[in-house]
Amino acid sequence: MIEERHETRGEKETSRIEAFSDGVFAVAITLLVFSLQVPALDNPPTSEHLVKMLLLRWPSYLAFFISFATILIMWISHHVMFKLIDKSDTLFMLANGFLLLLVTTVPFPTQLVATYLTTPVAGVVCVIYAGLFLMTNLVYNLLWWLAAHQSHLLKDSVSPKLIHTRSRDYALGAPCYLLALLLAFWSPGVSIGICSALWLFWVFTTYERRPTRKAYQKQRFEREKKESHDPA
Amino acid sequence: MIEERHETRGEKETSRIEAFSDGVFAVAITLLVFSLQVPALDNPPTSEHLVKMLLLRWPSYLAFFISFATILIMWISHHVMFKLIDKSDTLFMLANGFLLLLVTTVPFPTQLVATYLTTPVAGVVCVIYAGLFLMTNLVYNLLWWLAAHQSHLLKDSVSPKLIHTRSRDYALGAPCYLLALLLAFWSPGVSIGICSALWLFWVFTTYERRPTRKAYQKQRFEREKKESHDPA
Amino acid sequence: MIEERHETRGEKETSRIEAFSDGVFAVAITLLVFSLQVPALDNPPTSEHLVKMLLLRWPSYLAFFISFATILIMWISHHVMFKLIDKSDTLFMLANGFLLLLVTTVPFPTQLVATYLTTPVAGVVCVIYAGLFLMTNLVYNLLWWLAAHQSHLLKDSVSPKLIHTRSRDYALGAPCYLLALLLAFWSPGVSIGICSALWLFWVFTTYERRPTRKAYQKQRFEREKKESHDPA
Amino acid sequence: MIEERHETRGEKETSRIEAFSDGVFAVAITLLVFSLQVPALDNPPTSEHLVKMLLLRWPSYLAFFISFATILIMWISHHVMFKLIDKSDTLFMLANGFLLLLVTTVPFPTQLVATYLTTPVAGVVCVIYAGLFLMTNLVYNLLWWLAAHQSHLLKDSVSPKLIHTRSRDYALGAPCYLLALLLAFWSPGVSIGICSALWLFWVFTTYERRPTRKAYQKQRFEREKKESHDPA
Repeated sequence: MIEERHETRGEKETSRIEAFSDGVFAVAITLLVFSLQVPALDNPPTSEHLVKMLLLRWPSYLAFFISFATILIMWISHHVMFKLIDKSDTLFMLANGFLLLLVTTVPFPTQLVATYLTTPVAGVVCVIYAGLFLMTNLVYNLLWWLAAHQSHLLKDSVSPKLIHTRSRDYALGAPCYLLALLLAFWSPGVSIGICSALWLFWVFTTYERRPTRKAYQKQRFEREKKESHDPA
Repeated sequence: MIEERHETRGEKETSRIEAFSDGVFAVAITLLVFSLQVPALDNPPTSEHLVKMLLLRWPSYLAFFISFATILIMWISHHVMFKLIDKSDTLFMLANGFLLLLVTTVPFPTQLVATYLTTPVAGVVCVIYAGLFLMTNLVYNLLWWLAAHQSHLLKDSVSPKLIHTRSRDYALGAPCYLLALLLAFWSPGVSIGICSALWLFWVFTTYERRPTRKAYQKQRFEREKKESHDPA
Repeated sequence: MIEERHETRGEKETSRIEAFSDGVFAVAITLLVFSLQVPALDNPPTSEHLVKMLLLRWPSYLAFFISFATILIMWISHHVMFKLIDKSDTLFMLANGFLLLLVTTVPFPTQLVATYLTTPVAGVVCVIYAGLFLMTNLVYNLLWWLAAHQSHLLKDSVSPKLIHTRSRDYALGAPCYLLALLLAFWSPGVSIGICSALWLFWVFTTYERRPTRKAYQKQRFEREKKESHDPA
Repeated sequence: MIEERHETRGEKETSRIEAFSDGVFAVAITLLVFSLQVPALDNPPTSEHLVKMLLLRWPSYLAFFISFATILIMWISHHVMFKLIDKSDTLFMLANGFLLLLVTTVPFPTQLVATYLTTPVAGVVCVIYAGLFLMTNLVYNLLWWLAAHQSHLLKDSVSPKLIHTRSRDYALGAPCYLLALLLAFWSPGVSIGICSALWLFWVFTTYERRPTRKAYQKQRFEREKKESHDPA
């Protein structure tokens, strides 16, 4: 139980949590390359055989790509959430640790999907796959609830309206992933499809667009003009 | 033997040590995923067989979870300790390096426990497991002693009372882990139980809770009111 | 869709993107060491046999070196580009993620080249190798276009002339790598040669040289003299 | 060829180089754990057999420890050097990249030593081992020469005396490692011994000790007293 505060002036309290999380995301995303293997050829090797062997391994390329995209969007979500946060406490750190546990696990169910998607056991692997996504979404909800409601870890500048919008976006994911999980028993393809479509949803909800160079210079010019008329 | 100081103004001297340590913690915790393997099935595969094969591998999931939780709490402890430190010297860097050696070693004894916990050699692996934790605790004691007593590496704002509380908390771990090590010969389960219970102890001693949004705003409001009455 | 901005004052908005990218580059470049293996010897081992076995593995050393140099120059290019950037948006983050995908893939085609460069299938592997480089170059062009034209993510101090020079340099790469890809069918050696020569081109276009200690002190002395004559 | 400068005010220009290098050092040092393997036992396993199997693997523990200590001291040296540096240019970045290449290579010759130190080929592996250290030392000399002489990358506050001391310390290493390399043909043990002794030499030359809490407070008290007598 600590009551003293020892942050260096102006230091963002969450910077080491971000650095550690960045490290875990970066290692997890890079380890995926181990799923790509150089094929062994007969002696003497022929170009046709090499090309055929490389093409036969399409499930491992697909698994590599899906895992990469999944961890990448998780990292972007993490980045977008932590932009609003500048304090931290123990529960929040533990919840973030649990999220990282799920992140490092991603390659395992993805590998299951890549190996068994075209076999009779596709249903089981898609349940596990959607299940991991459901859990990840629940942990994002938990992290946001801890930061915005249970304790006050957000920056002072964050508006109640933004808190509300984000809470709604995170909450929307859970029923969709649950649906994907349940549909997996009926049609693995539809289940995978919903998981991928939600990827687009996360891109959209975190979407942010900067003005072009021209628009930016116009804005700046008008702000400066206004300031010269109305000095503080 | 260097007598000149060349830190950039306001730079925390330990920031590169923290970055390097974060990297080691992050890689070590992510490499644990290699203990999860996709099971090979007969052809054609059946859902029952896949589920059975996945469930049979529970020791590897347990090992993954324990290792993850262990390295996570070590990282949180490291983070909590370094919050109070803003200087560094060579002995401290070497001791921190020794701590990182123990961190990177964690997967090895955990794997031993996962492989042999249900066999007649459980006693030996639990001695090794508790032994690693005992050594880690001793190195945390050493790091803290170097920072707080041998040299003065703490921030000026750290109170003697906090130094005393922390010294006591770190020192309490050693006899408990020694007990776990000795009990391992008699009952491996009890030994593992003590190690897990100490996990909760570290969470508790580093526990920190932030005020809620409402309490935070009330505090701020009262501070501002007081300041307007009593201008500096 | 976010309209609020919550950057901490003076914080570079791209710092977490750089930290994450640095992590991915660092892990990818370090994983290459797995291509170096200790040879197994007969019992009893002889020095001649060990030396011979080590020399026989020259393709793995070459692959290690080429991959390392390739990822290193990609990192330097990334560093040089991000020096001019201090803002970010979603498209830019996704494009950067795609670049990191290519970075983590580097070991795979390099391993292909190392394994099959001296065999009849050299043509195929060199097409794949040059193809990866072509794609990487296209993504660098995309990143730069997003930062400089599509949105305004560059620092205010970057001159239009520098933007123009950089755009030209990035655009020059694409036709050269395409040429290398096409020539691979005719002569794998020439294809690899062009890829290596372009490595030198990237070093040259990002080349920057600092003044020596003497020149630096002279500059400083003259600036100070001028300032004392012409006080602001 | 860039002539514009775009560093954010007060930003240390080498911070991304340090972050990338820290990442490579951290990954390289953590990957060493792969040399520790859980032994497979007969069924049913006995405690005596497990202990015997674990003890038999002492060369892998030794290799793990030597590699860890080696990469750790290389990182400390890197840290100590970069404390004096706040600028960078292309040649310096390439030389640093070459150093990182050597760092990632460390596990390979260490593994060679661990595997063959007790066999007739010990001479060859010790030549390779000392050879890597010699090259690493030469690259440290090159880095320092680039930073201190070829271009002026050091902080303005670094004294010519410190530059001279450091240049001498780095230069001293080369003949010692060359001696270790040559003696390896005659006695592998002496060669390893010299390499280890130089480890202590690097600890000593980068050694830095902070005052104790009491000495620190006394210094501070006297400085404050002096300042109150002699106001600026």
